[in-house]
Amino acid sequence: MVTVDEIEAARRRLPPEVVQTPLLPCPALHEGRPAFLKAESLQVTGSYKARAAFTVLASLDPAARQRGAVLASSGNFAAAFAFMGRRLGIPTAVVMMRKTAPYKVERTHRLGAEVIFCDDRWDAREELLARLEAERGLTVIHHYEDPRVIAGHGTIGLEILEDCPEAGLVLVPVSSGGLLAGVAAAVKARRPGARVIGVQPEGADAMARSLEAGHVVSIPEARTMCDALVATHPGELPFQHAQRDVEAVVRVSEAEIAHAVRFLAIEAKLVAEPGGAVTTAALLSGRLRPAEGPTVALVSGGNVAPERLAALLRV
Amino acid sequence: MVTVDEIEAARRRLPPEVVQTPLLPCPALHEGRPAFLKAESLQVTGSYKARAAFTVLASLDPAARQRGAVLASSGNFAAAFAFMGRRLGIPTAVVMMRKTAPYKVERTHRLGAEVIFCDDRWDAREELLARLEAERGLTVIHHYEDPRVIAGHGTIGLEILEDCPEAGLVLVPVSSGGLLAGVAAAVKARRPGARVIGVQPEGADAMARSLEAGHVVSIPEARTMCDALVATHPGELPFQHAQRDVEAVVRVSEAEIAHAVRFLAIEAKLVAEPGGAVTTAALLSGRLRPAEGPTVALVSGGNVAPERLAALLRV
Repeated sequence: MVTVDEIEAARRRLPPEVVQTPLLPCPALHEGRPAFLKAESLQVTGSYKARAAFTVLASLDPAARQRGAVLASSGNFAAAFAFMGRRLGIPTAVVMMRKTAPYKVERTHRLGAEVIFCDDRWDAREELLARLEAERGLTVIHHYEDPRVIAGHGTIGLEILEDCPEAGLVLVPVSSGGLLAGVAAAVKARRPGARVIGVQPEGADAMARSLEAGHVVSIPEARTMCDALVATHPGELPFQHAQRDVEAVVRVSEAEIAHAVRFLAIEAKLVAEPGGAVTTAALLSGRLRPAEGPTVALVSGGNVAPERLAALLRV
Repeated sequence: MVTVDEIEAARRRLPPEVVQTPLLPCPALHEGRPAFLKAESLQVTGSYKARAAFTVLASLDPAARQRGAVLASSGNFAAAFAFMGRRLGIPTAVVMMRKTAPYKVERTHRLGAEVIFCDDRWDAREELLARLEAERGLTVIHHYEDPRVIAGHGTIGLEILEDCPEAGLVLVPVSSGGLLAGVAAAVKARRPGARVIGVQPEGADAMARSLEAGHVVSIPEARTMCDALVATHPGELPFQHAQRDVEAVVRVSEAEIAHAVRFLAIEAKLVAEPGGAVTTAALLSGRLRPAEGPTVALVSGGNVAPERLAALLRV
């Protein structure tokens, strides 16, 4: 399990390019109660992944740095990985499913990573990664099992408590669960009384189902507009963290997510991608019991194609 | 003239509802040089006006507070004035031209101010204000001549230098010039070597023309999509400040403004209204000589109707 000391250490190593993102007041979010948005959409490369991308790449030894590193990503980790690879002088490659939004593919190219496509199955990514490791000597980052990645994500939890020490409820978007694991590890270590809740789309709820079953379960496919939340099963390590630290994972509908993207743009003046807006959706839907102390909703990213955002604004 | 001591005093009085808005790195803004966005779009009520609205309302004596206050506004000051009036228990009224965006009218109502319409002429606002003062005893806030308003605006300049003490160039949107006056007074007092430049739409460039003429001049009408930048002449006091502290006021085209709104949404993940995006437009157009030291572009507001934003994203 990842400790808060490891998260503190990861935070001390973060480079100046990583933004301490603002915690923005947003009273309309939770029925007029004190509530804040942790805007990782304003992070460099447009999502929280910049933190973990640096943490994991900076940990490679000199020989591994020279050969390069590869991971599979639906887009946000790809962009962050490319950016931090270039900054550290490490060649990077990214395995993407063919169905990945062209906007995210182009961006990853532009930031300096090689993009290698695989079939549109979650497991096809793993198969190609194994081949690239064997054939090209690339270091494979299994980013939803890697403790360094979870520690990088956890730095967000430390910042939340620094800016809002009395936080009562922290909401986190969930795909394979690494972000949830890291943030929960930091928050529960430093403020055990705070509640941490994950949020998933109804059509991509593998972590929610796994927690309900008491073991990791898979769903056949992810059906959601949230292209950053398409894991068909949680990582084993994130699942263990969630079992220990997380009160629940709640589900939101596609309509609630669309409404939340619009709310964030019009009321909070933030561009959020659908996957980044699920926590806002959970609060606006009114299903969550208020906390003692302020609510914090993590807005995990803002990488949405202009046409998609325009369409969501017209709903 | 407004002094930096008055601006410091205004800052000390600001209530917790006023956000110390983030200064966000945005290297793509100025040809890869260090550049930041001062995101007053993330201010409470969605624009920088919250600061001055509080400053001026909090300065009223008890009798004036009871009778209430009125000002003319194209929308952003209206919303801020309504919000701060409610917070301070002071009745507020706002005079708006009939052509004001319905979105902004509705918002002002909802935040608690009475809205009173006048003809679509800049001077019609003044005539109605005079009548409301005489007939109803309302205190009229002449917000583009009031030194308390300029002091409130100037608090943004102090925050910019606090977060970026080495700033070399500060860009400010300009309508009647109060924001420019306040920010420039703070910046030039604390860092005389920094350059302060105003930005206006080509079709609403009264301050630019006035500085070129050496005295206040009027334009017949404002022709721009920037509904927050529709002054047909600068205020006299802001003009004097600009003459003393401002290097130049540059003009940007409507196409450049539209491109800047899109850039801010897609690259910086910020929702900006057209008037808030003019400083970004000036930098992206490549016309400004780089400064020694980082560039700061003030994004003054984010109150744009969803349909308008959607249309600009599809350009």
